[in-house]
Amino acid sequence: MAEYTPPKVWTWDAESGGKFASINRPIAGPTHDKELSVGKHPLQLYSLATPNGVKVTILLEELLALGHEGAEYDAWLINIGEGEQFGSGFVAVNPNSKIPALMDHSGDEPQRVFESGSIMLYLAEKFGAFLPADPGQRAEAMSWLFWQMGSAPYLGGGFGHFYAYAPEKFEYPINRFAMETKRQLDVLDRHLAENDYFAGEYSIADMAIWAWYGQLVLGRLYSAAEFLDVASYKNVLRWAEAIDARPAVSRGRMVNKAFGDDPSKQLLERHDASDFETRTQDKIAKD
Amino acid sequence: MAEYTPPKVWTWDAESGGKFASINRPIAGPTHDKELSVGKHPLQLYSLATPNGVKVTILLEELLALGHEGAEYDAWLINIGEGEQFGSGFVAVNPNSKIPALMDHSGDEPQRVFESGSIMLYLAEKFGAFLPADPGQRAEAMSWLFWQMGSAPYLGGGFGHFYAYAPEKFEYPINRFAMETKRQLDVLDRHLAENDYFAGEYSIADMAIWAWYGQLVLGRLYSAAEFLDVASYKNVLRWAEAIDARPAVSRGRMVNKAFGDDPSKQLLERHDASDFETRTQDKIAKD
Repeated sequence: MAEYTPPKVWTWDAESGGKFASINRPIAGPTHDKELSVGKHPLQLYSLATPNGVKVTILLEELLALGHEGAEYDAWLINIGEGEQFGSGFVAVNPNSKIPALMDHSGDEPQRVFESGSIMLYLAEKFGAFLPADPGQRAEAMSWLFWQMGSAPYLGGGFGHFYAYAPEKFEYPINRFAMETKRQLDVLDRHLAENDYFAGEYSIADMAIWAWYGQLVLGRLYSAAEFLDVASYKNVLRWAEAIDARPAVSRGRMVNKAFGDDPSKQLLERHDASDFETRTQDKIAKD
Repeated sequence: MAEYTPPKVWTWDAESGGKFASINRPIAGPTHDKELSVGKHPLQLYSLATPNGVKVTILLEELLALGHEGAEYDAWLINIGEGEQFGSGFVAVNPNSKIPALMDHSGDEPQRVFESGSIMLYLAEKFGAFLPADPGQRAEAMSWLFWQMGSAPYLGGGFGHFYAYAPEKFEYPINRFAMETKRQLDVLDRHLAENDYFAGEYSIADMAIWAWYGQLVLGRLYSAAEFLDVASYKNVLRWAEAIDARPAVSRGRMVNKAFGDDPSKQLLERHDASDFETRTQDKIAKD
């Protein structure tokens, strides 16, 4: 690799790219016509249970658990491995072709919202929940929410890609992104050494950070727990376990889950609170 | 590189890392005691004129141009090459040790705000400007602001690092991040083909995206204009040039600039609107 000299103008070699080569493209826009399904609730979520996806389903389940009936939602599966994020209907909701994407049909005009952080802020403000009312604590929550959005690409698109998905183990990128991921974990660990949550109370900042860094220390991402020595971040682990024990978090993790070893933890689509119970009964029936 | 096998547990080799090896660390927290300077205005900015830094100085100069006197600010230089982001005072404002970081002394208690996107939202809400009043357009502006925060790490920490700064030209990472950067530019280009701005009117979403992608198509980042064929994104270029022509943008780009070939475009610290004129006179005197 050391002798590589970049060309004057980059050109697309569709053959390269590792595990996700088929869904990584240098151009945007739709690849095919496909309308999105629309269910009975005002909130229509188009997603997949990746860390960015579960942020939103966890928040919606937490809102429902708190009694906000307006947070009832239909969750539709977007199978990114099949390129469903490039359908014309999805691109109209999120021109960036990434999950999650939300349509809110509750107002005079349907409203699109994209980017997981933006969806979380939109829902927290819509329902007046999981964002501190105190202006100072609210600013602190927003700083940590933006921190998650700007930091996780180094964990997911950087470390995760090169450690788990790239076609070869490249030493320099693995080192670069492992170092940054560990620095980020230490940032969190130092804050949580003196605080139960990121902004005084359980908020969208915790849910967003938990989806990536909480699940990382719980050993659920990239089979990298030993490599990154996640057990050494004791405060992150304590906080992650406390959040993991919340029933709404367990439900949120099941929604739009189309991968994993345990079908009893998967709910491909979610249209009603009773879907979780049906899911459990399915499992029992199969057993 | 193909034969590299990652160890069971990652360990820090402080020798590796390329141009920014000295400032990349796997641990957080302060490295030395150092109080921050505090000037006469309520808003104290600690920054450097990188794309993330100029987002905030452009917004502050736009707010002042609009007549918001409360947006007067002191801007202090944080020289990241010298490790000033690891001083105890800076870490107390931003535990993530990245510029920009803001302290607002206008309330009963001093308020810290970190992450450029969070600072922009905080200031836009504080002054009621550069964020659409219409709820739908506001949601659209927030989606694009979060888009910028989640996307630019692939441009800066991904493409820019591997194309311009890494110790060797590694083909796979350059291809991966060039492809993603071009896809992002195409996302923007398609939106700007049908819109003057990202959310109906000039907002913090435009300023944030301009700082990275606008400056990229204007040829100011990574000497990569030809490689990425930025001229082909004609709508991004038109929008970028329109924003570049704004006087507040020119002023914002000068603040905390400690690099570049033209000292007349640099204002290491900014404490008063007249500093820009003094700066110009310095230049004239030298000529």
